[in-house]
Amino acid sequence: MANKKKEEPIILITNDDDITSKGIRSLVEAVKGLGKVVVVAPDKPQSGMGHAITIGSPLRMNKLNIFGDIEAWQTSGTPVDCVKLAVDKILHRKPTICLSGINHGANHSINVIYSGTMSAAMEASIEGIPSIGFSLLDYKADADFEASKHIVRTIVTEILQQKTPDKHLLLNVNIPAVPLKEIKGIKICKQAYAKYDEAFDERIDPQGKKYYWLTGEFKNFDKSTDTDVWALQRNYVSVVPVQFDLTNYTLKKQLEKSKLFK
Amino acid sequence: MANKKKEEPIILITNDDDITSKGIRSLVEAVKGLGKVVVVAPDKPQSGMGHAITIGSPLRMNKLNIFGDIEAWQTSGTPVDCVKLAVDKILHRKPTICLSGINHGANHSINVIYSGTMSAAMEASIEGIPSIGFSLLDYKADADFEASKHIVRTIVTEILQQKTPDKHLLLNVNIPAVPLKEIKGIKICKQAYAKYDEAFDERIDPQGKKYYWLTGEFKNFDKSTDTDVWALQRNYVSVVPVQFDLTNYTLKKQLEKSKLFK
Repeated sequence: MANKKKEEPIILITNDDDITSKGIRSLVEAVKGLGKVVVVAPDKPQSGMGHAITIGSPLRMNKLNIFGDIEAWQTSGTPVDCVKLAVDKILHRKPTICLSGINHGANHSINVIYSGTMSAAMEASIEGIPSIGFSLLDYKADADFEASKHIVRTIVTEILQQKTPDKHLLLNVNIPAVPLKEIKGIKICKQAYAKYDEAFDERIDPQGKKYYWLTGEFKNFDKSTDTDVWALQRNYVSVVPVQFDLTNYTLKKQLEKSKLFK
Repeated sequence: MANKKKEEPIILITNDDDITSKGIRSLVEAVKGLGKVVVVAPDKPQSGMGHAITIGSPLRMNKLNIFGDIEAWQTSGTPVDCVKLAVDKILHRKPTICLSGINHGANHSINVIYSGTMSAAMEASIEGIPSIGFSLLDYKADADFEASKHIVRTIVTEILQQKTPDKHLLLNVNIPAVPLKEIKGIKICKQAYAKYDEAFDERIDPQGKKYYWLTGEFKNFDKSTDTDVWALQRNYVSVVPVQFDLTNYTLKKQLEKSKLFK
């Protein structure tokens, strides 16, 4: 931004809970005045959509007037579609930063893989846009985002103050569901090694046919003290730097040495 | 498998193109005789679904009889749902290995992020199941999978011969669309740094309203000679070891040193 000192930052906001959720409204409020805010978000809940894109059917966009003087569009697509549409069809350029959330519910540890919130942020990162996903550890529709708004504003202000925000900056920020005075600080963390133990809930429909609801119990296998789960359990905000290079370099070296596939 | 010498391997097969595609049939044929094969795959195309899971609606499963004496189930879910259903409701245990594909079309470089094929394999890896996604660089419905079948059988045979297949083994295998005699070998690679330049195709529907089709041009920014794209361009099969820990450890170190968020 060294050459663009007088240019107002453009802040693209999206989410996965849908454009009418309290979380995205709180995110808009949190960054008000820090730049020109444009909202492009899904018209329906898209939680758990991961990095899905829409390739078999076309997309729709509609301009909404639900955030006062802030430009806002709802789309029929996934969170990742929203970022693509925003860059190509709405902004016609890359925004200064992309913010996703505030998600109703945790996106720590393995949740980063399933999360539409974080996939939208990752899509922006693939485009070379500094990007942050925010999640509050409270899935309720009327969750209290007051402390989250303060945390969001602190982090976004710091990033925007950097002379040249790293275009590969991609952060997964999770916020404990406690009042601001109980938050102990902000910790840089790694993604905890955890998973869900699935247990599908099997039911019988009125026609006598079986159907299945996905349920699961969260299991944290990671005992280290620099994980997001560790920090959140102690009322820290966790910040995990994320990347989209999925190469397992340790396994790559092992396989290169092994006789496999020679 | 040291303690289970006499136990037949259980091979779970899934895909994202749907259970009736030529690619999954070719995968089943490729591994015939290497173990007990069970197919659990989507009932409709799920390309580009990434790591999406179904949490807002229930799932259905139906047993099919389209692979001769091989047990096969179609589900109404995403590729990731298929793996979860297979482990919890069909196998009632972890399979020895999970194979996904053979995808009609490339899943090299950044495609790994969007790919339902690779997300299914990754879900199995999260569950602690050695897992491989296979893709042929030919998206046509009637693509020629003969060379691919040979490659698949070679790789799967080698993995199953290991005393204890690494439960974190997760491979993204891409196969060039050339006859077997033109394939130069199998190369262990890293994920190329590449992206799509989006250009939505804007159209007007019969009611006069706009709609948008996602299109994009593939751009490879990676000049290094150990990437999957590099290998495939030279008619090698590319094998990228993949991980689901998305932590950017380089950026983590930088942020820990910086004054950000202190």
